[in-house]
Amino acid sequence: MNECINLAVKGIGKVSPNPLVGSVIVRNNRIIGKGYHKEFGKEHAEVIAVRDAKRHVHSLKGASLYVNLEPCCHTGKTPPCADLIIKEGITAVFVGTKDLNPLVNGKGLRKLKNAGIKVTEGVLRDNCRELNKAFFYASLHKRPFVTLKFAQSIDGFIALNNFKSKWITDINTRKIAHNIRAFHDAVLIGSNTLRKDNPHLDCRLSQKSIKPDVILLVGKTNLDFNARLFKIPDRNVFIYSPYAMDIQGKNNLHLKVIKPFNGRISLKKILNDIFKKGINSILVEGGSYTLSQFFEQNIFEEIYVMTAPKIFGKGISPFANLRIGSIQNRYNLILQDFFSSGNDIITNYKNYR
Amino acid sequence: MNECINLAVKGIGKVSPNPLVGSVIVRNNRIIGKGYHKEFGKEHAEVIAVRDAKRHVHSLKGASLYVNLEPCCHTGKTPPCADLIIKEGITAVFVGTKDLNPLVNGKGLRKLKNAGIKVTEGVLRDNCRELNKAFFYASLHKRPFVTLKFAQSIDGFIALNNFKSKWITDINTRKIAHNIRAFHDAVLIGSNTLRKDNPHLDCRLSQKSIKPDVILLVGKTNLDFNARLFKIPDRNVFIYSPYAMDIQGKNNLHLKVIKPFNGRISLKKILNDIFKKGINSILVEGGSYTLSQFFEQNIFEEIYVMTAPKIFGKGISPFANLRIGSIQNRYNLILQDFFSSGNDIITNYKNYR
Repeated sequence: MNECINLAVKGIGKVSPNPLVGSVIVRNNRIIGKGYHKEFGKEHAEVIAVRDAKRHVHSLKGASLYVNLEPCCHTGKTPPCADLIIKEGITAVFVGTKDLNPLVNGKGLRKLKNAGIKVTEGVLRDNCRELNKAFFYASLHKRPFVTLKFAQSIDGFIALNNFKSKWITDINTRKIAHNIRAFHDAVLIGSNTLRKDNPHLDCRLSQKSIKPDVILLVGKTNLDFNARLFKIPDRNVFIYSPYAMDIQGKNNLHLKVIKPFNGRISLKKILNDIFKKGINSILVEGGSYTLSQFFEQNIFEEIYVMTAPKIFGKGISPFANLRIGSIQNRYNLILQDFFSSGNDIITNYKNYR
Repeated sequence: MNECINLAVKGIGKVSPNPLVGSVIVRNNRIIGKGYHKEFGKEHAEVIAVRDAKRHVHSLKGASLYVNLEPCCHTGKTPPCADLIIKEGITAVFVGTKDLNPLVNGKGLRKLKNAGIKVTEGVLRDNCRELNKAFFYASLHKRPFVTLKFAQSIDGFIALNNFKSKWITDINTRKIAHNIRAFHDAVLIGSNTLRKDNPHLDCRLSQKSIKPDVILLVGKTNLDFNARLFKIPDRNVFIYSPYAMDIQGKNNLHLKVIKPFNGRISLKKILNDIFKKGINSILVEGGSYTLSQFFEQNIFEEIYVMTAPKIFGKGISPFANLRIGSIQNRYNLILQDFFSSGNDIITNYKNYR
């Protein structure tokens, strides 16, 4: 199952909104076939693993198949994997997690069992769930899994007051940050950050070939279409703004005009909309106005904080625009993970509801 | 040597300004005697270890002695340990670190060698140095080793603006904080913190019997002598203030009037003075005016940050009163250690010069 997960991860940045899936076929304690879902709309992992195995052996009769996600039983863009497994005479199937998609949700496992196949469910369940947590979350809630991320000084400033503080963390930590980006379908920033930082928002320091889409929350009427992020080819930029703007002739640019309510925009509305575009996960990278809105509206599942060994004294706080600001336990943040990168510390909190 | 360190640690809170020392005597691969320095002015570890051993064996001829610090060779409050070791016929001595005290500084080791004893120096040197880092620092610089410590929210606030945020971290983290206190000869706060927090500044959550002295930097003319910290018996409170005040009849209270220069007080002057009172190490616990002064005057060796899983949005920053505040590498903070306590994170930085 670990090998399935390793294979599945190779699909990062290419398969969403499908899940990451890897599959391994074993006979007589030997791996005879491997496969993973490589691209949205293309063959499932099981199909590739079966084909790989059949290049080595005549028949799969009596073999076992491992897969991190329940095999499908419906005809989508490809035929049902459960049927293929039955047809090939595979006698045991080991599954990491069920597929919560209502079209599957246990039906795939039942089909296999009804065909006399020995089904074991829940192998490395936690790891398999973690692997596709955004996929599961998005299928269930009909909106993307949201992670907040910011880099700050020890004393909690994401920038100096004059904004002359790009690259707070060191190069290796920024590589890790780009890796975290690669795990998300889209990166979201506000128009202030666009103007002040002019970021690329790509994964060039780590997984070069992956280009998450970009979501821009625009509060101003003017937007600089010469900014760097518009120049990265092959990705969509989704703009949400209270103001109409001319995007004629601009490839991959999508604009939705949304009306603010009570001076704030409804993030739920935006996220429900973006989910329909096939975005299962969003990394919110600031600035403080944007981070504060996600926090205040309680629309986030995780927070990544990268802390550099610097003291600013004064500066821009990540959640400076919060209207609540209270020590009361409205939020239950659980420390999930922490590690160092040089002299930087990276902490990951879960918003436990 | 590990056993020597374990023994030495038992002297915490009692031996300063002497170093922490533990000693073990071994013969035929068996420990025959142990000892540690228990109280300032009392017998050294080696003397106690020798006495302990002689309750079990007739003679120490041919035995080896382990000690984390070079044995002394001068007559201070007790006779020289080097002479005792030679007299008892011990044939090998294993030492962690040299004693930088100019009265010793290698002379103890030379005396042993000249008497034909086999001397090995540098056993677990790093651990032995760490154990007495404040002692070494203070002997060398003639002022105490200074550690800054604060507890904050994820977004870097040590208090809400209304100061209604006592106990940011959880009870276990506060126990760790009290343990860190126990490793220091004195705890230092400013008079704002005294007024706002009214802290005990003791070690009641961990090492109950240890009561570090207190240093108060007072910027106001009035001081509430009914505050809690004045009620803890058996410890000194050293007050530094530009204003004279009446401390007649108050036991263990010491006042020194110091004149500010350019609106700031010279911390070096204060620390040079406090060193003469036998204080080798100070834990600076705030608030932000005090922390900012220590940072700005670059008078600190380490920083402890305890971060609780809370977001305040706005509040009091630990170094809000810095006049410099810059990302430039004036300081080189090195991440020395980090660990979790429940959902809190504790990080330790070294001020690397």
